Amino acid sequence: MAREKCVLAYSGGMDSTISTVWIQENYNMDVVTLTVDLGAGPEIVGVKERAAQAGAIQSLVWDVRDEFVNEYVFPGLKAGAMYEGVYALSTALGRPLMAKKLVEAAREVGATAVAHGCTGKGNDQVRFDAGIMTLAAHGDPLKIVAPAREWGMTRDEEKLYAQKAGLELREVGSDQRVYSIDRNLWGQAIEGEDLEDTWEAPPEDAFSWTRQISDTPDEPIEVSIGFEKGVPVSIDGTLKSGVELIAILNDLAGEHGVGRIDHVENRLVGIKSREVYETPAAVVLNAALKALETSTMSREQQRVKDNLSAIYSDMVYDGRWFTELRTNIAAFMDSAHEFSTGDVRVRLHKGSCIVVGRRSPFSLYDFDLATYSTTDAFDHEAATGFIDIYSLAARTQSRKQTHSERR
Amino acid sequence: MAREKCVLAYSGGMDSTISTVWIQENYNMDVVTLTVDLGAGPEIVGVKERAAQAGAIQSLVWDVRDEFVNEYVFPGLKAGAMYEGVYALSTALGRPLMAKKLVEAAREVGATAVAHGCTGKGNDQVRFDAGIMTLAAHGDPLKIVAPAREWGMTRDEEKLYAQKAGLELREVGSDQRVYSIDRNLWGQAIEGEDLEDTWEAPPEDAFSWTRQISDTPDEPIEVSIGFEKGVPVSIDGTLKSGVELIAILNDLAGEHGVGRIDHVENRLVGIKSREVYETPAAVVLNAALKALETSTMSREQQRVKDNLSAIYSDMVYDGRWFTELRTNIAAFMDSAHEFSTGDVRVRLHKGSCIVVGRRSPFSLYDFDLATYSTTDAFDHEAATGFIDIYSLAARTQSRKQTHSERR
Amino acid sequence: MAREKCVLAYSGGMDSTISTVWIQENYNMDVVTLTVDLGAGPEIVGVKERAAQAGAIQSLVWDVRDEFVNEYVFPGLKAGAMYEGVYALSTALGRPLMAKKLVEAAREVGATAVAHGCTGKGNDQVRFDAGIMTLAAHGDPLKIVAPAREWGMTRDEEKLYAQKAGLELREVGSDQRVYSIDRNLWGQAIEGEDLEDTWEAPPEDAFSWTRQISDTPDEPIEVSIGFEKGVPVSIDGTLKSGVELIAILNDLAGEHGVGRIDHVENRLVGIKSREVYETPAAVVLNAALKALETSTMSREQQRVKDNLSAIYSDMVYDGRWFTELRTNIAAFMDSAHEFSTGDVRVRLHKGSCIVVGRRSPFSLYDFDLATYSTTDAFDHEAATGFIDIYSLAARTQSRKQTHSERR
Amino acid sequence: MAREKCVLAYSGGMDSTISTVWIQENYNMDVVTLTVDLGAGPEIVGVKERAAQAGAIQSLVWDVRDEFVNEYVFPGLKAGAMYEGVYALSTALGRPLMAKKLVEAAREVGATAVAHGCTGKGNDQVRFDAGIMTLAAHGDPLKIVAPAREWGMTRDEEKLYAQKAGLELREVGSDQRVYSIDRNLWGQAIEGEDLEDTWEAPPEDAFSWTRQISDTPDEPIEVSIGFEKGVPVSIDGTLKSGVELIAILNDLAGEHGVGRIDHVENRLVGIKSREVYETPAAVVLNAALKALETSTMSREQQRVKDNLSAIYSDMVYDGRWFTELRTNIAAFMDSAHEFSTGDVRVRLHKGSCIVVGRRSPFSLYDFDLATYSTTDAFDHEAATGFIDIYSLAARTQSRKQTHSERR
Repeated sequence: MAREKCVLAYSGGMDSTISTVWIQENYNMDVVTLTVDLGAGPEIVGVKERAAQAGAIQSLVWDVRDEFVNEYVFPGLKAGAMYEGVYALSTALGRPLMAKKLVEAAREVGATAVAHGCTGKGNDQVRFDAGIMTLAAHGDPLKIVAPAREWGMTRDEEKLYAQKAGLELREVGSDQRVYSIDRNLWGQAIEGEDLEDTWEAPPEDAFSWTRQISDTPDEPIEVSIGFEKGVPVSIDGTLKSGVELIAILNDLAGEHGVGRIDHVENRLVGIKSREVYETPAAVVLNAALKALETSTMSREQQRVKDNLSAIYSDMVYDGRWFTELRTNIAAFMDSAHEFSTGDVRVRLHKGSCIVVGRRSPFSLYDFDLATYSTTDAFDHEAATGFIDIYSLAARTQSRKQTHSERR
Repeated sequence: MAREKCVLAYSGGMDSTISTVWIQENYNMDVVTLTVDLGAGPEIVGVKERAAQAGAIQSLVWDVRDEFVNEYVFPGLKAGAMYEGVYALSTALGRPLMAKKLVEAAREVGATAVAHGCTGKGNDQVRFDAGIMTLAAHGDPLKIVAPAREWGMTRDEEKLYAQKAGLELREVGSDQRVYSIDRNLWGQAIEGEDLEDTWEAPPEDAFSWTRQISDTPDEPIEVSIGFEKGVPVSIDGTLKSGVELIAILNDLAGEHGVGRIDHVENRLVGIKSREVYETPAAVVLNAALKALETSTMSREQQRVKDNLSAIYSDMVYDGRWFTELRTNIAAFMDSAHEFSTGDVRVRLHKGSCIVVGRRSPFSLYDFDLATYSTTDAFDHEAATGFIDIYSLAARTQSRKQTHSERR
Repeated sequence: MAREKCVLAYSGGMDSTISTVWIQENYNMDVVTLTVDLGAGPEIVGVKERAAQAGAIQSLVWDVRDEFVNEYVFPGLKAGAMYEGVYALSTALGRPLMAKKLVEAAREVGATAVAHGCTGKGNDQVRFDAGIMTLAAHGDPLKIVAPAREWGMTRDEEKLYAQKAGLELREVGSDQRVYSIDRNLWGQAIEGEDLEDTWEAPPEDAFSWTRQISDTPDEPIEVSIGFEKGVPVSIDGTLKSGVELIAILNDLAGEHGVGRIDHVENRLVGIKSREVYETPAAVVLNAALKALETSTMSREQQRVKDNLSAIYSDMVYDGRWFTELRTNIAAFMDSAHEFSTGDVRVRLHKGSCIVVGRRSPFSLYDFDLATYSTTDAFDHEAATGFIDIYSLAARTQSRKQTHSERR
Repeated sequence: MAREKCVLAYSGGMDSTISTVWIQENYNMDVVTLTVDLGAGPEIVGVKERAAQAGAIQSLVWDVRDEFVNEYVFPGLKAGAMYEGVYALSTALGRPLMAKKLVEAAREVGATAVAHGCTGKGNDQVRFDAGIMTLAAHGDPLKIVAPAREWGMTRDEEKLYAQKAGLELREVGSDQRVYSIDRNLWGQAIEGEDLEDTWEAPPEDAFSWTRQISDTPDEPIEVSIGFEKGVPVSIDGTLKSGVELIAILNDLAGEHGVGRIDHVENRLVGIKSREVYETPAAVVLNAALKALETSTMSREQQRVKDNLSAIYSDMVYDGRWFTELRTNIAAFMDSAHEFSTGDVRVRLHKGSCIVVGRRSPFSLYDFDLATYSTTDAFDHEAATGFIDIYSLAARTQSRKQTHSERR
């Protein structure tokens, strides 16, 4: 009788290759590997071979980059998704899509379990588990296996385990030696022991997408980004797909040193954690869209959007993508971006991303109202009536309540 | 019989000198000028002479820099006061103190009116009027005169008026020719016609406190700022008064090109306006304190503080300093900064202000919890129980409500 | 040459009849009256005659009750529109629709002005003016005339003016003698001098839609209200149009003394004001929908919805109906009510409206999870893992920061 | 050698008596019982005897009613603590104080563990565990024992266990037969199987503090409650201690049927739960203070306070009393209540609690401003200037952005 199947999220790295073996041995299940391509770069090459070598009965490689950009990254951009104001949530936006694909693959191949490589301490296990359990709440139950959370092996024991299993591990390059990196087209998250002293700056070799300021070109460049209803659609007037546009901006901004984030952040599980990210395109696009919004949204729209952005960002970070509330907030954001159409000029220079121009057919900036020249369209006399009523409540309160010692 | 007196906020510039004459002529009042020193630099020299020349019967010059820093700037810093996330509210924090001093001076010299130089279109008239009316709600009524809002003269008519009045106007330097600048130790706001096209970058000559990136030193510098309960008290380990500390940071950061703000902002009176600011010290201190807070405040404290910061910032911008709500929020902020004590290392380089280190005796960052090494203190097995309950509501909702087409 | 035309919002009451004459005399315009039927009851009868008597060249009577309910009242209900938690915004929801109809009528008859009867002190002038100006921002300019804000007549002078103009004023019933009432199908607002002492209860004769508790039936009644996606559609299982449903509930609830509101509220113009309302159907429907939401929305949806409800309510009250932000929040609300389908049983008794039952095919209440019996489906052991991680941040903060004197 | 000691929270009921035995047997510890008197009424009598019978080596009974009222209940009242707008958090406010007393007692008697009677499914285990772990984060570690979460016995097995242990259980009255009740002076929470059908009204015998409407007096009564800075201090002009005042209001309001809450609420652990409460005094005091605030706080204070109240309420419910954020919000509340001094007249009648009067020396209600009579102090002409500027942003946005199909 055939063994039950487990679909394993497979990156091709050492941990997930060991997991392929470990699941077979410890759960007595056949393993189908699923490699989800979120634009992580070179790791896709050779994954099928490595999976087969580790005994996988089937090896799926799905390119979901367009779905990632259109259904996760750009909705997040429109929602102002920046965790604690600085982190563009690259990994956090990728996890729910991976969870979704794991469940889809499991249904497709008739698996009774899915597996991921997270440990028991980070945010990603929550994002995977919560996403999988939520999506699998309909239909047959789906068991979740998390080898690295369960096996309790040290790094050295893992290597020993791999040797015994006859696994030929990939040559490990210098950047994998020290740091643990999660990477997709929206950014990479870098972790490692050398980053854990919050009084010290991250060492330069932690970064691979962005140059340090002293190595960047002396001359700035400017790019113009075109938006349609909050979605970036062009660079310097040329239409681009989302995947292309992000790749171009990652290169340009990275070359000019833009996109490094060094942050003590609040992990979902109640821990403060020092995190380093590189998200060049995300930094540029967020700055550009925000600048466009300053022209096309009213003050009150900006305020409410900002409040919802903070909530939305926490939800994405906390693995709450597949919730009704996220859907509800997205409906607000879609409506709020009805007029976020226009161009933003951004200057990249020596680590800085500076917005130097914004224009829109729907811009609320009105030269005739705003100008301080004497030919303006603003009714100066209305001001005294305005101020009279505007300050009435404060004046009344001062009159009725102020103790001299309160001021 | 003696004429009634009017206390005029007097900068020594052309407009306020003309106003000195204009009030005497149009209101038949004696004018007492009040020059409030908020650290605006060279303008203080010679103000008494210019006031006398314009017929003022008395000329007060009050140095309120310490009061400004301790009662307005640093409380604002602790409250995270950054209008629309970018502008440190330098002018907006100065206006209520000027309003307060106008009322104090009026009571002191027995005046029945106070005057300021604002036009009928900006935020400052609201800040002045609302502040004055609120503070003067007790005691004898105090009339408010706003010559520039009332006289309706063009720039050329003003000059003609000055000539007729025999006023000897100050030599106007190149930066005053085009731009209207309001300046105090916390920053300067620059306005002018050349800034009013939002698609063009501000011309380089708009800036005087900060160098452009290409002119900054190639080598970064690092400064360490010490905080006590949210208040900056030292630089590189040396205790400084607030006024000194801000002056030092304005110089250092300005030299490295830090502190330029170019922003389409929402004016209180319902207009979008393009504003350019230079606030070097404010940018550095806000970044540093924010970084300290990431270590010493809990996630939930940070979230609530951020919400109140946005409200507080709008209140300061909108001329609502003298309100009970601002007092209430300040009480929250004081309590929240109980443990904001520690040091932050900031690197200034090529226009960037980068936090590279933070430490505090009260830091919530706990290496033993945060480390990804295998010797950590975190209970990995608790995670599954946590996730099980954490995701229960979302799973239930998915099971009961999800339409296939919603996902 | 024909005079320009002004469309006047016409209730048929004394003030608007006098206004008809006054506009002709003071603005030299022809007057077209527009009576907008929002379900205010008997006043519609005879309005055309009274308008003609006052010299109106044309008299429009538009029944917009369905539009009012479907485009204003029910969206407001879905948005949780309750000003300061108690007032269902009946007048405030009616004003923007009246403003819209005034602009439509003006465009239709080729008028160059519109007029309303508000004074210079209340909220309604803002709602009318802001609505009209916003809607008329496109197309030819439309002047706004507000006779009662402009004429400066006392009550007695108004009567004298009416007599001189030969106006035959309606018999004034007892409830119009003391109180000024604004009424539509969603409620009535009652103002008057006898209500202005906030230490005294409103006199009984202020109320006409609701009985006092001592006059209500001794026996309670129960009604079951059916909702579809947040919209009430049936009573006791019988489908009803919105207009019918509200009429039925106004009668039933009013008979049982439900729907009286007595509240010191914040008027938009900075004044505290004591307001008395009768909104029987609104109280019942709000309570019922809120109860349904407790079953069908997640905790996090309820929290965010509550925050947006408060903002939305202020916007409606403040005359900001025709804004993008209101549209954006409505999009959130539509999304959030995707599953607000079900029935709510409400008991009306002695002034109380008590929800005694709620059910929904999408209810998140799960007996097997919630029950305290020993056969439940909840994993008790997960709890310790949950609490361990849930309390980690607070424990860490206590360990690192607590001064003994803080607790 | 002496056994280690465990301090058990002891109510005198069956479960906690069994726990006394069970801890000795299963943990081999001596048990010290601690009965914390929060004003729960008759249960205190005889607890020492029952504890001794079950083998406790020491039995502490601490009356903490004043501490409860002054440090928990009234701060909560000032903070507007009402979970989901309806539940005055009686149990939730009591738990942290019980946790605190358990830790204090453990330190006093040299215990190494504390124990409480919560199961693994409700909120109370979280409140106890989180509170204990947070307070015990300093000093020697303190183990937490939760017998009912650990023992896995059904109701019948519990009885058998009690018989074997020779325990003489209290006569169980009719209200304990079906319902599980937690009670302190601020309210009682009633749970039980008969309440778990959300479509059915709670049976009448679930309630013991409040009469049903049909059994209440036909005549209303009115009480006047005096507040000092947000704290209730008198009834009908007579000063009362907090404990007395609450007792009086529980009696009065209960007699008139005020204080029944029936609510589907969100439990902390992700479950919807139907909860029934009786909190007569809490309903009256919350309504009264809220009414006072409408007169003494500005609109903007009320809005921010409401937002913080919702956060604070969730924190109390969720067992986050001992956190810095709660302390910070309490600082806001103390500041905001600076002027909440005055009297509120409340009418209790047939289940309703209706505020009929409010007055304060600091009331912001100003008759001369508010009155609609023609002698008012309000400047009607300022209104047009106000509206002109107030509506400018909306008009501009309409002009620049409105698609005809959006309106």
